[in-house]
Amino acid sequence: MQNSPTSSQRTIVVKLGGAADVSHAAALQDVARLRSAGDSVVVVHGGSAEADRLGEDVGHPARRLTSPSGHESRHTDPRTLELFVMATALVNRRMVGSLQAAGINALGLSGLDGALLRGRRKGALRTVENGRVRVVRDDWSGRIESANGMLCGTLLAAGLTPVIAPLAMTAEGEPLNVDGDRAAAAVAGAIGADELIFLTGANGLYRAFPDPDSRIARAHGGEFEELLGFAQGRMKRKVIASREAIDAGVGRVAIATAAGASPIAAALAGDGTIIEREMATEVSR
Amino acid sequence: MQNSPTSSQRTIVVKLGGAADVSHAAALQDVARLRSAGDSVVVVHGGSAEADRLGEDVGHPARRLTSPSGHESRHTDPRTLELFVMATALVNRRMVGSLQAAGINALGLSGLDGALLRGRRKGALRTVENGRVRVVRDDWSGRIESANGMLCGTLLAAGLTPVIAPLAMTAEGEPLNVDGDRAAAAVAGAIGADELIFLTGANGLYRAFPDPDSRIARAHGGEFEELLGFAQGRMKRKVIASREAIDAGVGRVAIATAAGASPIAAALAGDGTIIEREMATEVSR
Repeated sequence: MQNSPTSSQRTIVVKLGGAADVSHAAALQDVARLRSAGDSVVVVHGGSAEADRLGEDVGHPARRLTSPSGHESRHTDPRTLELFVMATALVNRRMVGSLQAAGINALGLSGLDGALLRGRRKGALRTVENGRVRVVRDDWSGRIESANGMLCGTLLAAGLTPVIAPLAMTAEGEPLNVDGDRAAAAVAGAIGADELIFLTGANGLYRAFPDPDSRIARAHGGEFEELLGFAQGRMKRKVIASREAIDAGVGRVAIATAAGASPIAAALAGDGTIIEREMATEVSR
Repeated sequence: MQNSPTSSQRTIVVKLGGAADVSHAAALQDVARLRSAGDSVVVVHGGSAEADRLGEDVGHPARRLTSPSGHESRHTDPRTLELFVMATALVNRRMVGSLQAAGINALGLSGLDGALLRGRRKGALRTVENGRVRVVRDDWSGRIESANGMLCGTLLAAGLTPVIAPLAMTAEGEPLNVDGDRAAAAVAGAIGADELIFLTGANGLYRAFPDPDSRIARAHGGEFEELLGFAQGRMKRKVIASREAIDAGVGRVAIATAAGASPIAAALAGDGTIIEREMATEVSR
């Protein structure tokens, strides 16, 4: 598989983060340019900031769970799930509207639509509160079990640009809050994407976070354990998602900054942390 | 065009109302049965009740505008538009989930997705308050200008059942709150539907509302002025939407009750008010 930044007709999955301080305007302009140049693009987004805001607005603020291993997640009780469904839909419709305004025929989906993402509830979650472990049972977050690559293929073949909200669907047709990074990885794997790009607050993975001079510029699929050792906080999930994507056959993963005038073009040109499936000949770590 | 209740391979558009007291469970089971039997079905829904509830929840309750001619509408200021986008998305995802759980491969859309419904803002609205006419300029409701029948056709051909939320898109990619009945009519016209069914609180149009014995069982496309004269309140819009559908080439429109175990099957079998394009041979008014 060839992954030259200048080749056309690539299939590119872009994950746009859900943090409050990340603007997507420049990235969406990049999506429009790539699409106009003939690449197929799928956008996957988050919704944390909008969900937090809506939770505050309705007097049901987000609560975070911390697993015994230190992993943080949103406590998705039934009301929070409703709010998450609504907030991610607002983000989705805004992105679709921005792309449409740029002349790109975007179509928004969640994992329920066309059974795009099937998942299962995590079930009982162990959480640490005030130093004690407690079990949470009313949580509607889940893990993705499969992505419907054929549906994405049908939409892309029809000239549409799918924009995907991070919900999966249970066997009973219920929505689940799923991690957007892993949703992007599942979709990228299912459609055999050439490139998966995570746009985020940092410009890739740093050996010594937050020192930008310690950025890891290149890595390959044999180095994930080492990469995970460097990852802090939410970056851990991006590394895990990157591994899932590479394992599923994606050619190249970039973790790069959402800042800048052309963040996707910059990532395609090699900015951020680039993880290639096979060890590249010009390894430049 | 033949419209026998027992013929298969029909294309049917069903509008499910957004009022608080209407349950959609039975209708969605009917959709699943029709789809399994080989008919193509498109669902269009409302969201008034959910939008009202969300407005109350966030402390921005819905305000109604009354036009000088007595027409009521939701004052869709920018915040109300956001709430409407979110609330209709929640309704949409729930319906998609219910259909998926029944084995039907539903896919949710709003008018923004794939530019399904293009519209334009109504602009300045004249409203009557305390007997005085006032002009409202910050309203984001709109009129539908076109429906993308090709997109619906592509989705139906792929075995998907589109479920459509009542938003249209401006030329600038902004969402607009549009009337769900007229959205259903626009979609039905664009795809050349055989049947358009409005499920609602009353079992059709009554000569002397609310006397159910005064129900108009049959009418045809030449009688719309007379029908409009009988319509009260929100029923007026269903009659206008029916006329738009018939004018756009839809074979038959039913306005029928959402109550009952099989409301769509009942409407297809002739319950409610049936409006046919041409005068039928067995007119039974």
